[in-house]
Amino acid sequence: MYFGADYYPEHWPREFWEGHAKLMKEAHFNVVRIGEFAWSKMEPEEGRFDFAWLDEAIEALAREGIQIVLGTPTASPPKWLADLHPDIYMKDEFGLTRGFGGRRHYCQNSPIYREYSKKIVSAMASRYKDHPHVIAWQIDNEFGWNDTARCYCDNCLQEFKRWLQNKYTSIDELNKEWGTIFWSQTYRSWDELILPAHSAADLNVGAAKRYSHNPGLLLDFYRFCSDSVVFYQKLQIDVLRNSGCSQPITHNYMEHFNQLDYYNLGKDLDFISWDNYVVYEWGNKAYETTAMAHDVIRGIKEKNFWVMEQQSGPCGWNHLGDTPKPGQLRLWTYQAIAHGAEGIVYFRWRACPVGAEQYWYGILDHDGIPRRRYREIQQIGRELSELSDIINDSKTISDAAIIQSYDNWWSHEFQPHNPGFDYHRLLHQYYSALMHHHIQADIVSIDTDLSKYKLVLMPAFNLMTDEIQTKVENYVKAGGNLIITFRSGTRNWNNSITLKTLPGYFKELTGVEIEEFDSLNFGRTVKSSGIFGEGTSCVWCDILRPLQAETLAKYSGEFYRGEASVTVNSYGNGKVYYIGCDLDEKAITSLLKYITVESQIKPLLSQPMDGLEVVRKMKDGKIYLFLLNHTDATIEISLEGKYLDMLSCETISTSVTLNAYGIAVLQSL
Amino acid sequence: MYFGADYYPEHWPREFWEGHAKLMKEAHFNVVRIGEFAWSKMEPEEGRFDFAWLDEAIEALAREGIQIVLGTPTASPPKWLADLHPDIYMKDEFGLTRGFGGRRHYCQNSPIYREYSKKIVSAMASRYKDHPHVIAWQIDNEFGWNDTARCYCDNCLQEFKRWLQNKYTSIDELNKEWGTIFWSQTYRSWDELILPAHSAADLNVGAAKRYSHNPGLLLDFYRFCSDSVVFYQKLQIDVLRNSGCSQPITHNYMEHFNQLDYYNLGKDLDFISWDNYVVYEWGNKAYETTAMAHDVIRGIKEKNFWVMEQQSGPCGWNHLGDTPKPGQLRLWTYQAIAHGAEGIVYFRWRACPVGAEQYWYGILDHDGIPRRRYREIQQIGRELSELSDIINDSKTISDAAIIQSYDNWWSHEFQPHNPGFDYHRLLHQYYSALMHHHIQADIVSIDTDLSKYKLVLMPAFNLMTDEIQTKVENYVKAGGNLIITFRSGTRNWNNSITLKTLPGYFKELTGVEIEEFDSLNFGRTVKSSGIFGEGTSCVWCDILRPLQAETLAKYSGEFYRGEASVTVNSYGNGKVYYIGCDLDEKAITSLLKYITVESQIKPLLSQPMDGLEVVRKMKDGKIYLFLLNHTDATIEISLEGKYLDMLSCETISTSVTLNAYGIAVLQSL
Amino acid sequence: MYFGADYYPEHWPREFWEGHAKLMKEAHFNVVRIGEFAWSKMEPEEGRFDFAWLDEAIEALAREGIQIVLGTPTASPPKWLADLHPDIYMKDEFGLTRGFGGRRHYCQNSPIYREYSKKIVSAMASRYKDHPHVIAWQIDNEFGWNDTARCYCDNCLQEFKRWLQNKYTSIDELNKEWGTIFWSQTYRSWDELILPAHSAADLNVGAAKRYSHNPGLLLDFYRFCSDSVVFYQKLQIDVLRNSGCSQPITHNYMEHFNQLDYYNLGKDLDFISWDNYVVYEWGNKAYETTAMAHDVIRGIKEKNFWVMEQQSGPCGWNHLGDTPKPGQLRLWTYQAIAHGAEGIVYFRWRACPVGAEQYWYGILDHDGIPRRRYREIQQIGRELSELSDIINDSKTISDAAIIQSYDNWWSHEFQPHNPGFDYHRLLHQYYSALMHHHIQADIVSIDTDLSKYKLVLMPAFNLMTDEIQTKVENYVKAGGNLIITFRSGTRNWNNSITLKTLPGYFKELTGVEIEEFDSLNFGRTVKSSGIFGEGTSCVWCDILRPLQAETLAKYSGEFYRGEASVTVNSYGNGKVYYIGCDLDEKAITSLLKYITVESQIKPLLSQPMDGLEVVRKMKDGKIYLFLLNHTDATIEISLEGKYLDMLSCETISTSVTLNAYGIAVLQSL
Repeated sequence: MYFGADYYPEHWPREFWEGHAKLMKEAHFNVVRIGEFAWSKMEPEEGRFDFAWLDEAIEALAREGIQIVLGTPTASPPKWLADLHPDIYMKDEFGLTRGFGGRRHYCQNSPIYREYSKKIVSAMASRYKDHPHVIAWQIDNEFGWNDTARCYCDNCLQEFKRWLQNKYTSIDELNKEWGTIFWSQTYRSWDELILPAHSAADLNVGAAKRYSHNPGLLLDFYRFCSDSVVFYQKLQIDVLRNSGCSQPITHNYMEHFNQLDYYNLGKDLDFISWDNYVVYEWGNKAYETTAMAHDVIRGIKEKNFWVMEQQSGPCGWNHLGDTPKPGQLRLWTYQAIAHGAEGIVYFRWRACPVGAEQYWYGILDHDGIPRRRYREIQQIGRELSELSDIINDSKTISDAAIIQSYDNWWSHEFQPHNPGFDYHRLLHQYYSALMHHHIQADIVSIDTDLSKYKLVLMPAFNLMTDEIQTKVENYVKAGGNLIITFRSGTRNWNNSITLKTLPGYFKELTGVEIEEFDSLNFGRTVKSSGIFGEGTSCVWCDILRPLQAETLAKYSGEFYRGEASVTVNSYGNGKVYYIGCDLDEKAITSLLKYITVESQIKPLLSQPMDGLEVVRKMKDGKIYLFLLNHTDATIEISLEGKYLDMLSCETISTSVTLNAYGIAVLQSL
Repeated sequence: MYFGADYYPEHWPREFWEGHAKLMKEAHFNVVRIGEFAWSKMEPEEGRFDFAWLDEAIEALAREGIQIVLGTPTASPPKWLADLHPDIYMKDEFGLTRGFGGRRHYCQNSPIYREYSKKIVSAMASRYKDHPHVIAWQIDNEFGWNDTARCYCDNCLQEFKRWLQNKYTSIDELNKEWGTIFWSQTYRSWDELILPAHSAADLNVGAAKRYSHNPGLLLDFYRFCSDSVVFYQKLQIDVLRNSGCSQPITHNYMEHFNQLDYYNLGKDLDFISWDNYVVYEWGNKAYETTAMAHDVIRGIKEKNFWVMEQQSGPCGWNHLGDTPKPGQLRLWTYQAIAHGAEGIVYFRWRACPVGAEQYWYGILDHDGIPRRRYREIQQIGRELSELSDIINDSKTISDAAIIQSYDNWWSHEFQPHNPGFDYHRLLHQYYSALMHHHIQADIVSIDTDLSKYKLVLMPAFNLMTDEIQTKVENYVKAGGNLIITFRSGTRNWNNSITLKTLPGYFKELTGVEIEEFDSLNFGRTVKSSGIFGEGTSCVWCDILRPLQAETLAKYSGEFYRGEASVTVNSYGNGKVYYIGCDLDEKAITSLLKYITVESQIKPLLSQPMDGLEVVRKMKDGKIYLFLLNHTDATIEISLEGKYLDMLSCETISTSVTLNAYGIAVLQSL
Repeated sequence: MYFGADYYPEHWPREFWEGHAKLMKEAHFNVVRIGEFAWSKMEPEEGRFDFAWLDEAIEALAREGIQIVLGTPTASPPKWLADLHPDIYMKDEFGLTRGFGGRRHYCQNSPIYREYSKKIVSAMASRYKDHPHVIAWQIDNEFGWNDTARCYCDNCLQEFKRWLQNKYTSIDELNKEWGTIFWSQTYRSWDELILPAHSAADLNVGAAKRYSHNPGLLLDFYRFCSDSVVFYQKLQIDVLRNSGCSQPITHNYMEHFNQLDYYNLGKDLDFISWDNYVVYEWGNKAYETTAMAHDVIRGIKEKNFWVMEQQSGPCGWNHLGDTPKPGQLRLWTYQAIAHGAEGIVYFRWRACPVGAEQYWYGILDHDGIPRRRYREIQQIGRELSELSDIINDSKTISDAAIIQSYDNWWSHEFQPHNPGFDYHRLLHQYYSALMHHHIQADIVSIDTDLSKYKLVLMPAFNLMTDEIQTKVENYVKAGGNLIITFRSGTRNWNNSITLKTLPGYFKELTGVEIEEFDSLNFGRTVKSSGIFGEGTSCVWCDILRPLQAETLAKYSGEFYRGEASVTVNSYGNGKVYYIGCDLDEKAITSLLKYITVESQIKPLLSQPMDGLEVVRKMKDGKIYLFLLNHTDATIEISLEGKYLDMLSCETISTSVTLNAYGIAVLQSL
């Protein structure tokens, strides 16, 4: 297993390198990531490359047994490049240039930028393809960060036209699919196409809400922008491979980020890594959001991953987040490992005295003196060197899967139906309810093999194709259990609303018809009751007419009092649950208890406990439980069966005690 | 009476048209509006006109007895036009182009756009001037929507200079009227004039607050923008008339919209229509706001009107509003008729599967299956075919009038005196108080014949002329009763503050002098008590010194405790009430009770009841009462006199019962 | 002492001037400020100067004994100038022109604008250098108002490059000091430098947050902008002096404004004046904020000052603020005098009927009739003509000083550490606590002579130099008492974070090390207790390890429960207090009680009383107390010693009674 830090030798005098490397070794480090913002240092002027300093830095680290993940530095083009070719800059939706001074100041569709990118990557590849200590490559840094996936420059317009031509072949087909007849927006040729920029119909000039643009145009623009990044990443990967690099290649993803289709971006990568900053999470359920983020990342390629930037101190740009409490760095590290991390790289080794991230504290403070955080990470390093064997290539086996779709996320984002509706929050709500019951869920794309799962959840899966319909029907026929919610199946893949009676593509599966719906505004709420007790909706109510389905709950208010709100339909050998409304946390938790029991899913622990997380992994036929105490209290957990505590090496039978922020790794005996 | 829907044949396959028309007929429809967004379909490329599809669509409808209101399609110029002449686009106050992709993406002052507009209208006129089924024309669609009346392009600047030259004749006169000596803004020639755009003195760049511009410039710019739209509309009307069209011409107004002087816009129209979406109203007093909107519209030409878009389902763009409850579509329809609608056109016939209005539901859902909403509208159609005789050419006779002024609205808008002051809300407050007492008020411009009314309200009528002063004085002298409020009479018509002692132009009429005023900030409130009991102000207090007037209420707080807050002055044969402060709802209601009794106005019903609306109409010498229950409860209404229930045909003497959202139309016997 | 009003003869017909002047004389006026927005009147077209009207106006005033402060009119260049040279306009961070129509529509770095400025100032200087009634000059008006100090035009870019070259000499030095190695931002030449404008890393496009720019760049840009204004002001001063003007020169500052380094701006001025609008203050502690503002202004040159615009009525642009209550104009005037004002000029003489400031009421209303406000000011004038002797050249003697630093303010502004942290608010909090105890504090720059003070407060003094460190150490060594807070001493003067162990430059002085810190987010609070009782922090907690220091308070929560939060260190003959966390008002007040007692500072009055302000002044060896009652109640104040009431001329021994908003000026006997 890899364990280390993100390191910027260019930030420090050369004479610091050796001391840094020694301290790293004492913390049991075996890897650093390096280089991803050092373009101006690698190529200080056009065509003049200088890698001597980098060689030396790598050497200093290697001497202490530390290997290198090498980043391509394209996230921060140097000033000379931008001055030679100012049209590499992005433009915002108002046509205004997003200039120099931060990072990611380039458009991925700039042909010139692509050429310069290939040159620097090619130079690095030549130098480091056979380097014994360079064990992996990272392409660029956090693609799409800060709305940089979406640009409105002329290069983008031209590429978008080509992308559309490639997709639709004929302009008539595009007009038909987008429905440009609406508001007289028919295009006669590819030349007439536009980017969804500032228009007469923007509701707020300043906040750039573009929701009056054609929904087909918007969705395709989001897809195009994502594809442009995928294409740009592939350019770099091709350079590396064509130059003879055989190391695995990764990119560092961001948490719950939705401007890119991360599934597509992942296809060209050997492994996924991501940047985990718990500090940005909301409230005391942050651990759920982080757990979910890990599962999203593991689901990208359905395999283990790295955390390429793992928070190791208080951090922020102009505002500093909370300081991690004693035990939390360790807790978060074990959480990452439990969910599939095989590499943990802490960001950053030492806080940088200059630049926009002066307040982004790492393991060491600016003064470089090892303190509490260093010691805690040193302890983790010590422990992990023992546990490495059970971590690498371990598997997380889940009974349930939540389907995540970026296309659907995008469509819901600009047309959310109701101010209170949020696709991601809905998925989170279902994920949390399962987690509450200690039921592990994978989060995967609809391309996954559904047959692995006893229960599949497709919340608000609204954009549909016939292929997906067939796939899902087959899954249920074969005995699968499926959850469908309100706002599902109403649109085709190009964002037109279906003329089928709702729930459209899911009508047969669910065995219901939606007679009417009610979007709840101005703080209205509606209650319903049934299998989950009583629940409250504040966003949306489908008024259901069961055809073949059985009613599990009914509304108790509004003009549709007594109508069905939740149903179940037997279909083939399986069951389809239709949840026609949003529900409060208590009701949804209770409803999922019922459905998971019906689906014969057994929780990892029988007693729900707030703040206690359990993850089950498998390695070489053995089962491991990771117990994670996210509370600041000591808790005692009852266990069924016998376990070996992998850290204390004691055998445990009835219960285990975890200190505040404590963890245990148990092997089932 | 006309009854129908807004229909977009271009959105649907030709083979759907017949079925649609038959369903319409079954709902007792006799009219559709058509064509107003179909330019790219009518003129698919420059100069090539195609009306064959439109002929066919009209024919299909006509076969079922349905007549046509034909819209000119200038609200959505096609892409080819914009590409040929990109300077038709509007510019925002930052000089940024508001481009293609929504609607209304044109500047009404573009000479080129005017030419293209004339051509398409002329082509339509030639084709449809004698068409037996085209019974009316609608010009464009919702002029000014989404801030499209105000553009900052060079065409606008040049036109504005001409407009000013025409108004002021000499630049010295303009300098004097605007007071450009302030901050050294003197203009030496027409060429030096500006538009009130982004300046060094904008307080918020993003939100584009322009309040540091000269108040005369701002007011004239608002007037100019409104006049530009009036001029542009007139161009189209002239084309129609010059081409030989004799059908009546209308435009669809928006609710409580204030970027255009709707009185001026209405002068060139044969009848007014408007678009009524109750979904946008706030809280449980939405019916009051809608009632007031109807009355504003009826007041434009002081005659009956159409609702050209009447909400018929849940609607919204990215967010869906509430679903109308059973009975509400009918209730809202009768409310419209009660207030003067002679045409009801539901928007839209069937929800459109594509475009920005995918969520704007109509009578039919996307799947085209008639459900509850269709059946309710069918019932209305059946009823109205019986009632048509008493609706057409009926009159609404009101004892009171509220004067509305767009010039004043504009002036108050950019200089509202106090953050809590809102001209429109003030008018609404007075309207509501009268409505509470079942007293019907017209809402009219100051150009109206005041002598029809027992009581005239001129809330915050601040911009004044000597002519208006004389007119109002004559009204009161002749026995009229007049209400004036704080922030009245302090400015001349070009937005300079008068040097007269306040209340300026109203000093003689009111018989008071304003010694001081107090604008209430930081949540301060001030109480006063008198004829209305006790009331609370939270916006403004004039400290009054009665000269001839009598004191009706006094302040009980602040340093002006004991000073007069409300007065009445006898003037000629009439009375003038000066209300020197804002008041809470209870106080204002009580005060208006007193004033209306003093003015010998008799309520339509003696007992106020929240949610019950009563409207009185007259036709052929007979009196009709429309009773509208806006609550979700059954209510019983006591009546004086005997009535014939026009729907049940029963005679009613002491009381009538209305179900939730129920209505009754009673003829006085 | 000077007493008068801001007057705009150009706003009024010539025939009004005499009447105005007579009314002024009756109010005991002896001065008016004039001319600062009248460029278009002085130079109606290029090169044609017209001062005849101004001569006449001055003459009309002089006849009544009124002297003139003459403003240069460069805050509002005329339209002809802007039309000839549109590049004098500023550009915002998006590159958009901030055009004509308000005021301050020019860039101080425009070479052309500088030339025109010199010409008009030179013309005025020739005319008025020897004028017997022109007693002082005001340069321009409110430099920097509404973000006009910071411009992003090409002139600014070029000047910024020169400024940087001048400061850093070599580009390598700049790169080192800014740390441009971070994110590959190395500059190879001065040509490559940028302004911190709209970039790919802006977090909000609309609100233009630029915090991802390099902190060194940002700080130098702020300094450069301030220096540009200082340079521009100096240009005008030089013209006046070179033309032979010998009158004193001032500029009117704004309250608590931080876009300019007011200390630097003040160096070229003979005296400082400022514009005091109490209306803009928050809540019922407005008098504290105003008191502090006066002290900031007095601290600029450490001498007495003028209020060049003193609020004299309700005022605002589009919104009117509260009307001053009877007595408040007098109270605020005496407050100004108490804090060092030797000139009181009310803004404005008479409310202007035109322009953006129509609602900015002055002494007279639009109608020109003297009312309550005139009478109150007349009374003040009468009183002050008696008191003038004790006011001029009087001194305010304070035992304590708060160090204010614009460089630190800027640095904290774009990187405030925590959303709840505000440098200015922190200074205010300490100022208020001292004021509560009736302890007078000067507010001065770090360049002051510290030895005058028993206690010096340096809250959040974060940017440091070795020179400052030595100066402060010497002060304490010699027996001074010093307060240092959290977020101090962590950065060098170019905004890099020090590699010293924190509190960095203050480590030795404070005798503590910061082991860790905790930035409090999401509403977390932490309590600590000790010498001040119990206190609550909601922004920041330093976890202190006392080395030589003694612990005065400890945290009672979080993982650092029991660690030191406040310490005191004996250093040489003095003491250094380190306050490691923010504290609530009660705790900080209690803590400052302790520290001031320890520092042997005696309060002016022994009994704190909310709303009662006391200021001590000295003139010719006599001590004067100004007692100011900011409450609306009558209060009685116990006194020690015997006093002469300067207004009633009575002797007072044990107590004095002040009416609501009343004041007393007592001479110690």
